[in-house]
Amino acid sequence: MIIRRVKTGVPGMDEILYGGIPERNVVLLSGGPGTGKSIFSQQFLWYGLQQGEPGIYVALEEHPVQIKRNMIQFGWDVRPYEKKGMFAIVDAFTGGIGETAKREKYVVRDPTDVGLLVDVIKEAIRDTGAKRAAIDSVSTLYLTKPVIARSVVMQLKRVLSGLGLTSILVSQVSAQERGFGGPGVEHAADGIIRLDLDEYDGELYRSLIVWKMRGTKHSMRRHPFDITDHGLIVYYNKVLRVRGGRAFIEQLPEKVVEEMEKAAQKVEDVYEEAE
Amino acid sequence: MIIRRVKTGVPGMDEILYGGIPERNVVLLSGGPGTGKSIFSQQFLWYGLQQGEPGIYVALEEHPVQIKRNMIQFGWDVRPYEKKGMFAIVDAFTGGIGETAKREKYVVRDPTDVGLLVDVIKEAIRDTGAKRAAIDSVSTLYLTKPVIARSVVMQLKRVLSGLGLTSILVSQVSAQERGFGGPGVEHAADGIIRLDLDEYDGELYRSLIVWKMRGTKHSMRRHPFDITDHGLIVYYNKVLRVRGGRAFIEQLPEKVVEEMEKAAQKVEDVYEEAE
Amino acid sequence: MIIRRVKTGVPGMDEILYGGIPERNVVLLSGGPGTGKSIFSQQFLWYGLQQGEPGIYVALEEHPVQIKRNMIQFGWDVRPYEKKGMFAIVDAFTGGIGETAKREKYVVRDPTDVGLLVDVIKEAIRDTGAKRAAIDSVSTLYLTKPVIARSVVMQLKRVLSGLGLTSILVSQVSAQERGFGGPGVEHAADGIIRLDLDEYDGELYRSLIVWKMRGTKHSMRRHPFDITDHGLIVYYNKVLRVRGGRAFIEQLPEKVVEEMEKAAQKVEDVYEEAE
Amino acid sequence: MIIRRVKTGVPGMDEILYGGIPERNVVLLSGGPGTGKSIFSQQFLWYGLQQGEPGIYVALEEHPVQIKRNMIQFGWDVRPYEKKGMFAIVDAFTGGIGETAKREKYVVRDPTDVGLLVDVIKEAIRDTGAKRAAIDSVSTLYLTKPVIARSVVMQLKRVLSGLGLTSILVSQVSAQERGFGGPGVEHAADGIIRLDLDEYDGELYRSLIVWKMRGTKHSMRRHPFDITDHGLIVYYNKVLRVRGGRAFIEQLPEKVVEEMEKAAQKVEDVYEEAE
Amino acid sequence: MIIRRVKTGVPGMDEILYGGIPERNVVLLSGGPGTGKSIFSQQFLWYGLQQGEPGIYVALEEHPVQIKRNMIQFGWDVRPYEKKGMFAIVDAFTGGIGETAKREKYVVRDPTDVGLLVDVIKEAIRDTGAKRAAIDSVSTLYLTKPVIARSVVMQLKRVLSGLGLTSILVSQVSAQERGFGGPGVEHAADGIIRLDLDEYDGELYRSLIVWKMRGTKHSMRRHPFDITDHGLIVYYNKVLRVRGGRAFIEQLPEKVVEEMEKAAQKVEDVYEEAE
Amino acid sequence: MIIRRVKTGVPGMDEILYGGIPERNVVLLSGGPGTGKSIFSQQFLWYGLQQGEPGIYVALEEHPVQIKRNMIQFGWDVRPYEKKGMFAIVDAFTGGIGETAKREKYVVRDPTDVGLLVDVIKEAIRDTGAKRAAIDSVSTLYLTKPVIARSVVMQLKRVLSGLGLTSILVSQVSAQERGFGGPGVEHAADGIIRLDLDEYDGELYRSLIVWKMRGTKHSMRRHPFDITDHGLIVYYNKVLRVRGGRAFIEQLPEKVVEEMEKAAQKVEDVYEEAE
Repeated sequence: MIIRRVKTGVPGMDEILYGGIPERNVVLLSGGPGTGKSIFSQQFLWYGLQQGEPGIYVALEEHPVQIKRNMIQFGWDVRPYEKKGMFAIVDAFTGGIGETAKREKYVVRDPTDVGLLVDVIKEAIRDTGAKRAAIDSVSTLYLTKPVIARSVVMQLKRVLSGLGLTSILVSQVSAQERGFGGPGVEHAADGIIRLDLDEYDGELYRSLIVWKMRGTKHSMRRHPFDITDHGLIVYYNKVLRVRGGRAFIEQLPEKVVEEMEKAAQKVEDVYEEAE
Repeated sequence: MIIRRVKTGVPGMDEILYGGIPERNVVLLSGGPGTGKSIFSQQFLWYGLQQGEPGIYVALEEHPVQIKRNMIQFGWDVRPYEKKGMFAIVDAFTGGIGETAKREKYVVRDPTDVGLLVDVIKEAIRDTGAKRAAIDSVSTLYLTKPVIARSVVMQLKRVLSGLGLTSILVSQVSAQERGFGGPGVEHAADGIIRLDLDEYDGELYRSLIVWKMRGTKHSMRRHPFDITDHGLIVYYNKVLRVRGGRAFIEQLPEKVVEEMEKAAQKVEDVYEEAE
Repeated sequence: MIIRRVKTGVPGMDEILYGGIPERNVVLLSGGPGTGKSIFSQQFLWYGLQQGEPGIYVALEEHPVQIKRNMIQFGWDVRPYEKKGMFAIVDAFTGGIGETAKREKYVVRDPTDVGLLVDVIKEAIRDTGAKRAAIDSVSTLYLTKPVIARSVVMQLKRVLSGLGLTSILVSQVSAQERGFGGPGVEHAADGIIRLDLDEYDGELYRSLIVWKMRGTKHSMRRHPFDITDHGLIVYYNKVLRVRGGRAFIEQLPEKVVEEMEKAAQKVEDVYEEAE
Repeated sequence: MIIRRVKTGVPGMDEILYGGIPERNVVLLSGGPGTGKSIFSQQFLWYGLQQGEPGIYVALEEHPVQIKRNMIQFGWDVRPYEKKGMFAIVDAFTGGIGETAKREKYVVRDPTDVGLLVDVIKEAIRDTGAKRAAIDSVSTLYLTKPVIARSVVMQLKRVLSGLGLTSILVSQVSAQERGFGGPGVEHAADGIIRLDLDEYDGELYRSLIVWKMRGTKHSMRRHPFDITDHGLIVYYNKVLRVRGGRAFIEQLPEKVVEEMEKAAQKVEDVYEEAE
Repeated sequence: MIIRRVKTGVPGMDEILYGGIPERNVVLLSGGPGTGKSIFSQQFLWYGLQQGEPGIYVALEEHPVQIKRNMIQFGWDVRPYEKKGMFAIVDAFTGGIGETAKREKYVVRDPTDVGLLVDVIKEAIRDTGAKRAAIDSVSTLYLTKPVIARSVVMQLKRVLSGLGLTSILVSQVSAQERGFGGPGVEHAADGIIRLDLDEYDGELYRSLIVWKMRGTKHSMRRHPFDITDHGLIVYYNKVLRVRGGRAFIEQLPEKVVEEMEKAAQKVEDVYEEAE
Repeated sequence: MIIRRVKTGVPGMDEILYGGIPERNVVLLSGGPGTGKSIFSQQFLWYGLQQGEPGIYVALEEHPVQIKRNMIQFGWDVRPYEKKGMFAIVDAFTGGIGETAKREKYVVRDPTDVGLLVDVIKEAIRDTGAKRAAIDSVSTLYLTKPVIARSVVMQLKRVLSGLGLTSILVSQVSAQERGFGGPGVEHAADGIIRLDLDEYDGELYRSLIVWKMRGTKHSMRRHPFDITDHGLIVYYNKVLRVRGGRAFIEQLPEKVVEEMEKAAQKVEDVYEEAE
């Protein structure tokens, strides 16, 4: 059995994941407002496009036009790829209302109908041959009905993983809330990456931690990161520690850093099977 | 792609925002009672008027007459601008009842009807050519129905941002509550500015922090501010730190201050696009 | 525009308010059981009577007869003023049942009917020419229906402020609870004064803090106060600080004290208007 | 106006109350399980009987026969007083079911019917000429319907205070819970005495604190107490302080102790009235 | 009036209770999972059987066959006593379904019917002449309907105490939860014994504390205990203290220990009555 | 009475359990996301297969095909055992939908129907002669209906324990939540093993603690563990302690370690019975 590693394209992140996200994993990207979840998932898709891997972005929070504008601000102009049929935005935001919306190809008329959403996603995957997907955000799908959260995530997981995609589900949590989006969601995901924005001693600090990732060893540390004009940069060689209400950023030992750098080269895992 | 910076007009605030609010952003201005949210948003509109930019104020908490009286106390007499058609108060407070209310032009008969509210707002924007808006407060719209919060904010965002305005949505939270107004609201906004009033060691301290602001770098620090007879003054060159239950106000390094002062001059951002 | 200052008559309080409560303000007086809220509001009315200013007391917690008895214990016998038509108790307690209740003039048959309550209050204001009002307590009006809290306070605010009165709304919170009575109420009030009774190191301490007061600068400190045989005395020249679970009462610097003493003389504010 | 002091008969307690409970006050006696609330209220009634003051005990938690047995264990045999018509137990426990219950005179058939309860209480007061009452516990009356708590307490207060009795309402709170029984109840009472049983450093400590008492000055300190074979003894000359998770019992200064001892002699207060 | 002491038979426990549980007391035995509640109550019944006192075990959590097996693991084979008619298990677990269940004599067909349960308990008491009872657990009876908790406990108390039994009601609380099972239950019991299992510094510690016990003085300390192959052993001569997140077990002073040892001999209390 | 010990096969775990899980015990394996619950339960079943003990895996969270894939990644290829009829996956995930699902033998059409689930489990046990079972996860069965949690666990316990199996019920709790899955579930289980993943000082630590295990002595300490390419390894000779927000891993004394190592050899317990 061979499992390929999907490179995130976020500088420093593949080191933290010891080679990237194992193929077909559904990763919950959880964080409060302003933590950079959308940027991370756009960067993941953009990197795929640069490597020739098609991708889809399921927009539940923002107008497709605005998403493309936001990406341009980071230097990621997806429109040429869209034209080539390598990229598609599934519009689960406008409900098909408005001038620009009418020009969109993958429109979910009623985003509260998860079955319908799944059908449009399938269509977009088939058309583009997508290998990567980002859903921004899954929380929107069950914000007012938390009781269906697990079932929604399960349905998405079945289609995305089933069709061979590696995907990121953005999970919005309240600022200061420590969980990842509720028990039904946290346990259903193959991986959890948590983005944090916290105030210590009058200053805001960005950091992330990989809480779980099925099928790979990963860094067990909290790493600082920045949001730059060209997207996120994760400092895989640094750790953020909090002591007495103050934050400290420390350099990791050379040996640890080297191990991550070496592991980041990994492209696949081979598992022996009986027979 | 060019995105203009909208100056807040609050002394010190544009330094903190490295040039002002990116145009079309919908900013959540969140804080407890007595933190200065209304004053901030009135100051934002007043500054626009001084610069020749029309604006509208959506009044959900206070009688339009009282709002104008409050503004006069800070030296901001909007009535001449109202007469010139550069400024309008959308009255979603009186329901059209009362003598003075009858003289108001933009009256929302039933403020619980968000569709109706949006229509009146659109009309006021069209008439005034508004470039700035303040809604005081959005919380009122979903205080008794938190389940509709995200949808209300989304509807407002679509019309305000869609019509090219830069806007401030006042979000009321309880004293001592640390969030910004709930997950649906926090994630929907393009920016979050948090105003705080906290007691440390028997004294009240005012401070603000920019939690997120799409499309711009911003200060990642908690800055002290004052409410004076002429509105808010933010100390962009100072940071408020809390240690052992006591607050300390420290001067920031000269280099950091200079960087903010220089950035405050910024008037627009230009992004390259493919093609 | 001229706004008069209404003296509270509570020794030390007008210093803290830099001259008294700005006229027409609706002030939330919030505190747990035993903090002195009723006494404060009765003292406020009594002082008005001594200055020739009529007032009304809206009784929701206590029998009108008992309220007058309680006031006598502090040396405040309102009965002569009642006879002169300068003072009235609006009885929203007895529902008109009982011998003494039958003799009351301003009886609210059904206190759960806010519209009815407002009508009786209006009548009492008209008859007495009241300039001051105290409602003890507003919490009772929405204790079992928190969802209507904001709307109740809004209705009261409209009539009290609209008719030119300066008023105190008593807000009951649970002991140890830190808020002021819920978001809908806290943000609707023009001012918030919080009375506290806290145990530190085996002893009970009384203190108050002005959290907000529209239209005036005020002390930003926590001041200790006492309840004496003649009502409250606030130590505007002292601050209560808590460190390591113990309370300390410190003298404020002479300069700060003098500023408050000077400001306490203020009788009105004049604001310039355009035109 | 003359207000008599009602002696509690609990050694040390009248010192803490600077002379006893002001007549007609309705006192909330609040505490967790095992804190001694029932014993305190029985001791209060027993002392009255020794002074020739009739009293009633409203039993909601325990069989009247068991209550008399419990009292005998402290040396308080109320049966002779019952025969003389000076003491009565209002049985709101058995519902009139059982052999011994049939012999009870004041039986409340349906304790969930507060109106009925009040009627039986009135009858018992009339027959005995009671000056003291204890209701053990009021919490039972609204345990499953917290929304009616305030209204229940109000009804009891009206009849007890109205008929001239001084009374104790036992309020059961959960162990570790810090409040007194909810906002509706806490604010309705004329006084609050809190009994505590807390674990510090592996040992249980008993202490009480008077949180409020209308019409009298009272100790503002937390006093240790014991439950002995003859009831409670309160150490009015000692204070319980907690520092770093450990409890310390300290002697109060002689001056403070003397003031309380002197005040404990007080038998009534006289208030001057206008006219 | 004479009240006999019922020995628990748990080594060290009668010392802590200064002679044992006063006869007819209904004792709440409260604790989280794995704290030893069932073992304690089985040991209490087994000891009774050794002294010639019949007893009943009301099984709500476990199959009667399994309960007997569990007891054998501690060396307590109740089957001979069952045959002699001195011991009975009231089966409120199986609902009478299954082969072995059909052989049970005291089966409660519908355990949600508390009236039915009480009838079967009465029958078992009558047949065996039981002096001791254990109900494992009462929590099960109101797990899904907390609102009936107090009423359930009251019904059980009436029949158990009324028929002269001394009984233990097992109360299940969540791990880490500090209460004893809710206000209705805590106040209804004559005694509360709390069993704890807590982690300090990476190790689990067992301890118990007697929170209240009507009719007797008891240790006011937290004592460590062990669960051995022969049941619980309580270290009445030791106290468990927690400081800075670490647990310490300290020896008690000789005098204190001797007092408990002497008191443990007590067999009854005699109270004088008037007449 | 003889009770056999069932070896977990997780290196270090049988030392911690002083010989393994007592036969027929139903063990709750509780933990947050990413703690290794599924791996632990798969390792438990795989070890059984190596020892010639058949087993079943009840899949509620993951597709049977995916589960087998996941197990191969640890070197556990169950397919040959499946063919031999020694292993079966009960598919309570797909609802029988999909190509591969049609080939599954033990399919639960409606996983919300617990009666149906129990029937299929019984059939799989009968066919395979299973001695071990893992249910991953029970939480799924009552995620949206917590009120039925205890009843679900009771039904499973009856059939699994009744048919002689030793089983692991995976209980999903939220990250940071400290309990084990709610009172109804925690008390119903014969054993509780808690897996933890916690952040201390910027690093993630894995540890487990056995909270209870009916019928055996067990380590009362928190042990660190790792998840390796070949499953879990528990460091029974080490303890994880947390002091001042930092984690420390300490070696246990030689004597303690030797006792566990010796106990790990235990294969059964023999209990004497009367008669």
